[in-house]
Amino acid sequence: MAADELGEFERIGRFFAPLAGPGGLGLLDDAALVDCKAGCCLVVTADTIVAGVHYLPEDPPEFVARKLLRVNLSDLAAMGARPLHYVLTTALPAELGPEWLARFAQGLAEDQRRFGIDLIGGDSVSTPGPAVLSLTAIGEIAAGREIRRSGARPGDLVWVSGTIGDAFLGLRILRGTYRDLTAERSNYLIRRFQVPDPRTELGPFLSGLAHAMIDVSDGLLADLGHICETSQVAAVVALDQLPLSPAAQVIADGDPGLRPRLAAAGDDYELLFTAPVEATEAVAELSSRLNIPITPIGKIEPGVGVRLVDADGRTISSEHTGYRHF
Amino acid sequence: MAADELGEFERIGRFFAPLAGPGGLGLLDDAALVDCKAGCCLVVTADTIVAGVHYLPEDPPEFVARKLLRVNLSDLAAMGARPLHYVLTTALPAELGPEWLARFAQGLAEDQRRFGIDLIGGDSVSTPGPAVLSLTAIGEIAAGREIRRSGARPGDLVWVSGTIGDAFLGLRILRGTYRDLTAERSNYLIRRFQVPDPRTELGPFLSGLAHAMIDVSDGLLADLGHICETSQVAAVVALDQLPLSPAAQVIADGDPGLRPRLAAAGDDYELLFTAPVEATEAVAELSSRLNIPITPIGKIEPGVGVRLVDADGRTISSEHTGYRHF
Repeated sequence: MAADELGEFERIGRFFAPLAGPGGLGLLDDAALVDCKAGCCLVVTADTIVAGVHYLPEDPPEFVARKLLRVNLSDLAAMGARPLHYVLTTALPAELGPEWLARFAQGLAEDQRRFGIDLIGGDSVSTPGPAVLSLTAIGEIAAGREIRRSGARPGDLVWVSGTIGDAFLGLRILRGTYRDLTAERSNYLIRRFQVPDPRTELGPFLSGLAHAMIDVSDGLLADLGHICETSQVAAVVALDQLPLSPAAQVIADGDPGLRPRLAAAGDDYELLFTAPVEATEAVAELSSRLNIPITPIGKIEPGVGVRLVDADGRTISSEHTGYRHF
Repeated sequence: MAADELGEFERIGRFFAPLAGPGGLGLLDDAALVDCKAGCCLVVTADTIVAGVHYLPEDPPEFVARKLLRVNLSDLAAMGARPLHYVLTTALPAELGPEWLARFAQGLAEDQRRFGIDLIGGDSVSTPGPAVLSLTAIGEIAAGREIRRSGARPGDLVWVSGTIGDAFLGLRILRGTYRDLTAERSNYLIRRFQVPDPRTELGPFLSGLAHAMIDVSDGLLADLGHICETSQVAAVVALDQLPLSPAAQVIADGDPGLRPRLAAAGDDYELLFTAPVEATEAVAELSSRLNIPITPIGKIEPGVGVRLVDADGRTISSEHTGYRHF
């Protein structure tokens, strides 16, 4: 039996209703209810992925579900918000049967437990084309505590959580490169690509410390470019400060041209933020308390654009990074 | 130039950013901010439509946009909520160029003004398949004042706003039937199908009066069935009480078998609710004050299922309506 033959009501009742939180009213009503604490704002973000464009049709459905959810949680974290609920709309081709849906819902269920969130509503329709999955995530933050992209100021340091380039290398491994890497290292990098770890714990703690924040999705240099553009400032990033995972380091050691390319790599869903120099100790303390590496990689200056520099302060041309600001 | 060549940023900046409200932060940040008044709940609903499934690829893009928005506003109204904002995600094929997008955005802009709402976020991606459009609407209601589907009680009267069956007949006209109808009547019915009028004004006033409410999308009998199922009651509907528009009446006069079919017709986006007998005067007063017909069409009983009866109280078989409860 194909998903199409299941019908909308059965699809919702069987696979999605078990994921619904109290505000979702069992997915049985016209709309969901979202409570908002006094003094809080809700924070809302959405992402859409298409089979064959953003993921491969043969990818494990659990991973597709979890990545879709996690990239949205990463956007909430990048505002400093705590995740609460999500709304899911799916347009599915008939050939995706109940087994695919069950595994997709299983992936959502696991991450709901992990991140303490629930499904409150959505829609489920059929399409003659490839699957299109849209997720709207809702979080909360104390009013006025959100961290926007527009607050960077000259003199700020630029920080990034975790490590950069893993997802890019994971995708390369899936495509057949780096065959002499150990299985453990390969799996680590592939996993970073397939199921990113959004920094939902770290994000809210940066409220009051960070001047501007974004998550690394388009690429570190491009995303820093978004901050610079909305903040009307420039940034300089030191290539040798770029935090690499041990697995990425092994690959970079054997390929000196790779590092600049990793500075432009996306899909890591790390938090990239700017903070005044006075916040340095507080950031270091946070890093140690949460056991999450947070590395200073550059600084904000007056001007326009993002410049990557080597250990001697020389600008590295965009030919070596693949990132073009204009 | 096709939409695909425009690129995501240009598509968002050119067509969608002008629609953004203050909470949308110019669509330039990771997420949007939604304020929530003290003592209020937010109400959230979503719908997805697919080109070739829910609308025709050649339909005017303004109408596609407005219908997508309006069916969601209808869901909010059916909870008694007032609309505030919406989130839009689009997966578009490359052949939909800037002209289609400009007209689509124009339709949204018109309805934003009309309903006093704004765009706060979303996503815009490309797809090799048909266009898939998802809209999440956000409204507000005083805490505890929402009208659910589950509150119907035996003894309640069943009411419906406006007229029923227009959208069904409008679609038939688009497909070539009723060619001898006047142009004025044809256009009226077609318009009811293409751009429904959600009862956003009426909905909030029914909070405190209605025990249960839903909007007529699947069909009057089916939607009343949803109320009965979640409320664990039965309903009886009098066929001769069904409110028809003058245009629908002309067609029904020439086709005695049509009336039962209209009782099962959907897509009218009228409000269907149950209320205690004591609320009758208040409902009549509301109808007259807002200048919206609200007609009593039946009542709630103990039991299971929805029964359509003729003027003599005889049950009309589902063969004549096309609606099957089980």
